[in-house]
Amino acid sequence: MTDTIDTTNPRDDEARDDETSEAQAIEKDLDASAQLPKRAGSSGPNRMTGNGVVVARTDVEQLGRYLLGTWADVRLAARELTAKPEMQRIEGQSVEEHRERVFGQLKLLVENGQVHRAFPKELGGDDDHGGNIAGFEELVTADPSLQIKSGVQWGLFGAAVLHLGTRYHHETFLPAIMSLEVPGAFAMTETGHGSDVAAIGTTATYDDETGEFVIHTPFRGAWKDYLGNAAVHGTAAVVFAQLVTKGVNHGVHAFYVPLRDPATGAFLPGIGGEDDGLKGGLNGIDNGRLHFDAVRVPRLNLLNRYGEVAEDGTYSSPIQSPGRRFFTMLGTLVQGRVSLDGASVAAAKIALTIAVTYGNQRRQFTAGSDTDEEVLLDYQLHQKRLMPKLATTYAASFAHEQLLTKFDEVFSGAHDTDDDRQDLETLAAALKPLSTWHALDTLQEAREACGGAGFLAENRLVGLRADLDVYATFEGDNHVLLQLVAKRLLSDYGRKLAKADFGVLARYVAGQAADRTMNGSGLRSLAQTVADFGSTARSVGQLRDSSAQRQLLTDRVETMVAEVAAKLRPASKLSKKAAADLFNLHQSEIIEAARAHAELLQWEAFTEAVDGEQGLASGMDDGTRVVLTWLRDLFGLGLVEKHLAWYLMNGRLSPTRARAVGLYTERLSARLRPHAQDLVEAFGYGPEHTRAAIASGAEKARQTEAREYYRAARAAGTLPEQEKKQDAKKRDTAKPQH
Amino acid sequence: MTDTIDTTNPRDDEARDDETSEAQAIEKDLDASAQLPKRAGSSGPNRMTGNGVVVARTDVEQLGRYLLGTWADVRLAARELTAKPEMQRIEGQSVEEHRERVFGQLKLLVENGQVHRAFPKELGGDDDHGGNIAGFEELVTADPSLQIKSGVQWGLFGAAVLHLGTRYHHETFLPAIMSLEVPGAFAMTETGHGSDVAAIGTTATYDDETGEFVIHTPFRGAWKDYLGNAAVHGTAAVVFAQLVTKGVNHGVHAFYVPLRDPATGAFLPGIGGEDDGLKGGLNGIDNGRLHFDAVRVPRLNLLNRYGEVAEDGTYSSPIQSPGRRFFTMLGTLVQGRVSLDGASVAAAKIALTIAVTYGNQRRQFTAGSDTDEEVLLDYQLHQKRLMPKLATTYAASFAHEQLLTKFDEVFSGAHDTDDDRQDLETLAAALKPLSTWHALDTLQEAREACGGAGFLAENRLVGLRADLDVYATFEGDNHVLLQLVAKRLLSDYGRKLAKADFGVLARYVAGQAADRTMNGSGLRSLAQTVADFGSTARSVGQLRDSSAQRQLLTDRVETMVAEVAAKLRPASKLSKKAAADLFNLHQSEIIEAARAHAELLQWEAFTEAVDGEQGLASGMDDGTRVVLTWLRDLFGLGLVEKHLAWYLMNGRLSPTRARAVGLYTERLSARLRPHAQDLVEAFGYGPEHTRAAIASGAEKARQTEAREYYRAARAAGTLPEQEKKQDAKKRDTAKPQH
Repeated sequence: MTDTIDTTNPRDDEARDDETSEAQAIEKDLDASAQLPKRAGSSGPNRMTGNGVVVARTDVEQLGRYLLGTWADVRLAARELTAKPEMQRIEGQSVEEHRERVFGQLKLLVENGQVHRAFPKELGGDDDHGGNIAGFEELVTADPSLQIKSGVQWGLFGAAVLHLGTRYHHETFLPAIMSLEVPGAFAMTETGHGSDVAAIGTTATYDDETGEFVIHTPFRGAWKDYLGNAAVHGTAAVVFAQLVTKGVNHGVHAFYVPLRDPATGAFLPGIGGEDDGLKGGLNGIDNGRLHFDAVRVPRLNLLNRYGEVAEDGTYSSPIQSPGRRFFTMLGTLVQGRVSLDGASVAAAKIALTIAVTYGNQRRQFTAGSDTDEEVLLDYQLHQKRLMPKLATTYAASFAHEQLLTKFDEVFSGAHDTDDDRQDLETLAAALKPLSTWHALDTLQEAREACGGAGFLAENRLVGLRADLDVYATFEGDNHVLLQLVAKRLLSDYGRKLAKADFGVLARYVAGQAADRTMNGSGLRSLAQTVADFGSTARSVGQLRDSSAQRQLLTDRVETMVAEVAAKLRPASKLSKKAAADLFNLHQSEIIEAARAHAELLQWEAFTEAVDGEQGLASGMDDGTRVVLTWLRDLFGLGLVEKHLAWYLMNGRLSPTRARAVGLYTERLSARLRPHAQDLVEAFGYGPEHTRAAIASGAEKARQTEAREYYRAARAAGTLPEQEKKQDAKKRDTAKPQH
Repeated sequence: MTDTIDTTNPRDDEARDDETSEAQAIEKDLDASAQLPKRAGSSGPNRMTGNGVVVARTDVEQLGRYLLGTWADVRLAARELTAKPEMQRIEGQSVEEHRERVFGQLKLLVENGQVHRAFPKELGGDDDHGGNIAGFEELVTADPSLQIKSGVQWGLFGAAVLHLGTRYHHETFLPAIMSLEVPGAFAMTETGHGSDVAAIGTTATYDDETGEFVIHTPFRGAWKDYLGNAAVHGTAAVVFAQLVTKGVNHGVHAFYVPLRDPATGAFLPGIGGEDDGLKGGLNGIDNGRLHFDAVRVPRLNLLNRYGEVAEDGTYSSPIQSPGRRFFTMLGTLVQGRVSLDGASVAAAKIALTIAVTYGNQRRQFTAGSDTDEEVLLDYQLHQKRLMPKLATTYAASFAHEQLLTKFDEVFSGAHDTDDDRQDLETLAAALKPLSTWHALDTLQEAREACGGAGFLAENRLVGLRADLDVYATFEGDNHVLLQLVAKRLLSDYGRKLAKADFGVLARYVAGQAADRTMNGSGLRSLAQTVADFGSTARSVGQLRDSSAQRQLLTDRVETMVAEVAAKLRPASKLSKKAAADLFNLHQSEIIEAARAHAELLQWEAFTEAVDGEQGLASGMDDGTRVVLTWLRDLFGLGLVEKHLAWYLMNGRLSPTRARAVGLYTERLSARLRPHAQDLVEAFGYGPEHTRAAIASGAEKARQTEAREYYRAARAAGTLPEQEKKQDAKKRDTAKPQH
C-alpha cells in the first residue's frame, strides 16, 4: 500500500519518501538478519562473505536430518518401505480392487514387522509409542488408505483392546489382532452421533441370569457407521455402547464383539450391516455400517480397565466421576489425532515438493524478454501462493514433533500424570485441525498452481486431496476439537481468576505482562499476563524481532480468552438454557480464540527449532539459520497479516506499522524464493514418494527442448518472422526519417 | 469484540454500556429494515403486523421464478431433462463406462433438440445464444462431465467452426458437428502452453505448391493436451497453430483437421496421441493429447473469418493489428467462461440446498436441555459457515444473469460494438474466477458441515467438488483472468488520466466523488470519482444503508486501481525488463484490485435485483424484499469484513465502526437463519436434482424415530437412569440438610 492515501500523512512527496524509506528499511533489516552473530552452540561450517555477512544458504542434508526428528530411523525405514511399488496406490483401481490391494498391504506390513511397535514387549511388541506413530504416518505417501486402514486395525481396534482392556483381553485377543488374523472394526460412531460420542444410542445391558451383555441397536440413528473394516474384512469389532446394569446407565464402555464367521464372511446371528459404498476418497478402506439385534457376548468381553461389572451385575470403576471416566477412556485413543496431524504434514510436504519443483521448471509468458518465458516461481503471485504455505508446513512439522514427543512421554509412562494427559489431548485437539486444513489448502493451491497438469491423477495432488478431505472431520470434527481447546483455555483462565470479582477481572485484562514462557505441556501459560496495550504498539520496534512476534501473537490469544471469559461470566448465574444461548452467541469467538492459540503453538515450535537449545543452532551452519529465520518470520508475520484487522481494531498496531507487515511478508517471500527448492528437498521425499510426472524433471526436459528448438531455428535463420516485426520493419523502411 | 480493551474508551463501565447499546442499535436497525415503506412498484401480497411492520417472509415460488431469470423456460425444460435418471451420473462407474455413458447422453441431447439453439436458423438452429448457455449450464446438476463434454462438442469445437469459419465451413462441417456424427476436439492448449495461447508451438505452414497447410508439432511441449474428445471419441478437431506463409508467422489461427478414421477409430497418418488418463474429476470426458507430424489439410480448412491465405500464399485479414486479430478470435470463445460461471452458481445452489436441509434436520449435542439435542443450524458457528455462502450464491446468481444478458446482446448482434465485446470479455473474466472458487469453497464447507455423511458419494458433495475443481483453471486460469481484468481497469484509468502529470494524479486520487453509477457494460465507471477519505468514515452512518455499502466497496476499488496505476506509472520510461520487474513487484496488488472490482460487480447485481426497477420490488411482496435485503447486506458487509484491515489502514472505518461490521454480519446470519430453508428452496432444485440421501428427509425420519424412542421409554419408565443422576440422588438422600 502506498502512503499517498495515508490520511495521517497528507503531503504526497513526503509520504512517498516514507514508503521508499520503509521499503529500504525492510531490505536493510533483511540484510541485517544475514549478519547474525555466530552462536555459541553453532559448530557447523559457515560461509561468510569478506565483510562478515553470513551467506543465506540451506544445508539440505543437515536440515533434512533435523526435520526427521527423534524417530529419524523409524521414519527412514518407513520411507524405504513406502518407496516400494507394492505398497503404493495404483490410481484408477475399482473400489473392490483397491480394497483388496490395501488389505494385502496390511499383511505385508505384518510381515515387515511394521505394526507391533506400540504393543507390549511380552506380546512381541516394542512398547515404542512415538516410533509407532512416526512409522504409521509415513504410510500416507504410499496411499492414505493404507495409513488409515492400518490405523483402524492397530491404532483403533487393537489400541482399544490394549488400552481399555486388561490382561485377559490382551492375551486372548491381541495376538490375532496384531497378526491380522482377526481384522476388526472400531465401532464408536453412529449414523446419528459422530463427535458427540457420549450420546450414542447402542446399549449393552447386563443379564445377570446368563452372565452376558446384550448389545442392541434401538433405532436406525444408532447404527454404527463409517467404520473401516466393517463392510467386508472385519470379523470382530470393539463396540462402544451405553453400559446398563441393574437399571442404571453407567455411560459409554467398549465391548469386544465377534462380527462375522471368518470362514464364510457371513454376519453372525443378530448382526447386520451395509456397505458405505463409494466415498470422496480413501476407497481402499471398506467403510460400513453395523447394527445389533440383541447380540449376546460374555461378561468378560467388556474391556474393563476403567469399568467392571461383577457376575451379580454390580458395577465398579477406579474412576468415580462418570464424566472423567468417559474422557479418560476416550483419551487413550488420542493417537488417532496425533497420527492424522503427522500424516497431514507429510501430505503438505509432498504437495509442496511437487508444486515448487514444477514452478521452478515450468515457464509461461514472456515478461521482460522477447524470447525467454518466465519461470513460474519468479512471478510474485506464484511466490505469494506457495511460500507462506511452505512456511506453515515447516511450522506444522516442528509442532508435530513436539506433539509426538509429548505423546510418547505420556504413553511410555515417563510423564503420565492427569495433567500430562490433559495437556496431550488439548495439544492434539489444537494441532490436528490446523494441520488437516492446512494440508487441504496446500494440496488445492498446489493443484491450481500446476494448472491442468495438477488435475491429472498421474500428478498425485488430486488423489491426495480427495483422500485427506475427511481428515478434517474424522477423529473429532475440527471445529468441535477447537471448541474443546477453547474450553480448556477458559477453564485454565477461570481457575486463575476464580476469586476475582468483575472489576478486578477487567483491570486484570488490562494488566501488565510477566511470564510468557511456554510451559512443559506445550500449552501457553495464559492469563498470567496481558500486555500494556499502549506500549505494545510502541514496543514493536522491529516486526521481525522474534520477541515482537511472540508478543503480538500471545497478546491476541490472551486478550481473546479474557474477553470471551468476561462475556461468559454471567453464565454461571443463568438457567441451563440461557447459559447455552449465551455460549452460542459467542461460539465463533470462542473457536477463534482456540485457533489463535493453536497458531501460537506452531509459532513457538518453529521458533524453538530455530533458536532453541536443541534447535538448528546446535550443529548447523548459520546460513541455514538465516534462511529458517526468514521462513519463521514469514510464518509469524503471515499470522499477524491474517489477523491484521484485529490488531488495528484493538490498537495493537498503527496503520503505518500494519502496512509494513504486508510489505515484510512480500519481501520475505521474494527473499526465500531462491531457497524454495532446497527447502522442499530437505523434506527428504524422493521421486519414489512424490511419484508425480510433472515433478520428475520431465517438464525441465520439455522446456529445454523447446528453447533449444527456437534457439537453433533463430541461429539457422529458419524461424519465420513475426508479422508484427515485419510490419514494424516495413514502417521503418518506409519512414527512415523517424 | 468487547470494548473493555478498547484503548479509545478506557472506562470499563461506559465501554460495556457502549457495547450493549451498539448491539441494541443493531437489533433496532434490523427491526427498522422490516418497516420498509411499501414501494410504488410493489403489487404483491404483503403481510403486516398490527403496527405496520412488514413480516419478514420469503415467497418461495415468486422468488424462485425471479431467480430463473430471462431464460426461465429454457432452464425449466433443462431441469426436466436433468431430472431423468438416464441423463444422470452413476457414482462409481469405471472411467470407460463413464465415458461411454456421457457420450450416449450427448446423443440423447441431440435427440431432444437441446444442442442447436446457438446455431444459425438456416442450419436448423435458433440463433438463441443466451438460451443456449442457460440450458447447457443446467446440465451440471445431472453430471458435470455431461455439461463439459457437451461444451467441448458444441460450445468449443462447433462454436469455433461457427464463429471463426465462414459459409463454406458452416455448410461443410457444422451439420455433422450438430448431429454428433463428427465428435470433435478443440485443440488449443498445449502441454507447454495453457493460458498463454499466443505462444503455442504448433505450426501450420502454407505450401503454395500443393495448396495445403502442413500442421506440425515441433517438440514435445507443443503436443496438444487436456483436450476433451481427443483420447477416444474425436474424429476431427479444430487445431490452433501459428499460421506461417511466405516465411512470415501471422500468429495463431484455427484449422479444421480430421483426426481418426470414423470406421476404425484409428488415427489418420501423421497423427498420434495419448490418453490423459484418470483425472481428479470429470472422468466422463476422454481428455487426451495429440501431435501432428507434417499433417496436410486443404487450404480451405483454415477457418478464415479473421485471416485468409490466398492460393498463392498471400495473407490477408480484416483486422490489421495482429494483436487485436488474436484477441478478436479468442473473444468469440467467451461463452465457455460464461457457462462455467453459470454452472458454478448452480453447483453452489445444489451444495447449499443439501447442507441447509441437513443442517435443519440433524441434531447434535444437548446444549440448553437435558433431553433435546440442538439442530445444527441453530449453532452460531454453523450459521456463520453457511449463511454468508448463501448470500454470496445469491449475489453470484444475479451477477451471472447480467453476464448472460450481456452475452446474448453481443452474440445476437443487438449490441455488438468493439466496446461491447471488450466489456463482455472483461465481465466474464471478472465473474468466472469468483464463482468457480466460490463453488469449490461452498462445496467444501457443505461437505464438512455434513461431517462423515458429507464424505459419502451418495450425498453428492464430494463428487461435485472433484468435478468442479478444474473449473478454477480451465477456460483461462482464474489468476490470469483477474490479471486481464486489472489491465482493463488500469487502461481505462490511464486513458482518463493520460494527460495528467503525477502531481495532478495524486491530487485526483484524493479528489471528490461524482458519478458512481454502473455503466451499461456492467463495468464500474472508475477513476471518475474517489471519495474524500475524511468524510467517508463519517458519512457511513448506517452500515446497512446500501449507499454506504456502495461507497465503501467502490472507494476500495477506485483507490486500489489509482494506487497501482501510480506505482506502475514509471514503467513507460523503463526498459522492457525493468518494466516487467516493476509490474511483477505489484502483481498481487493488481490482482487484488481486480478481485475487489469483481466483488463490487456482484454486489451491484444483487442490489439491482433487490432495489432495481426490474427487481424483486416489481410484483413481489415486501416481506421477501426484507429478507433479500438482509441477505444483500450480509453479502456487502461480509465483503467489508473480509477486507476490514484495508478499511482500517486507510482510515475509511474507525476501530469502533469496524467492530460494528462483525457484529452486524453475525446478527444478520442469525436473523436470516429462520429463512434459510426457504432461500434454498427458491433455487428450485428438487430431490431429483440434489439426489443426496441426507437431504431426502431420511435424517429427519431418523431423528424423529430416536426422539420418539426416548420419549416413549421415559414415559414407560423403562429408560435406565443415568449413573450421574443416581449418584446425585444418593447424595441428596444422604445429606438432606443441604
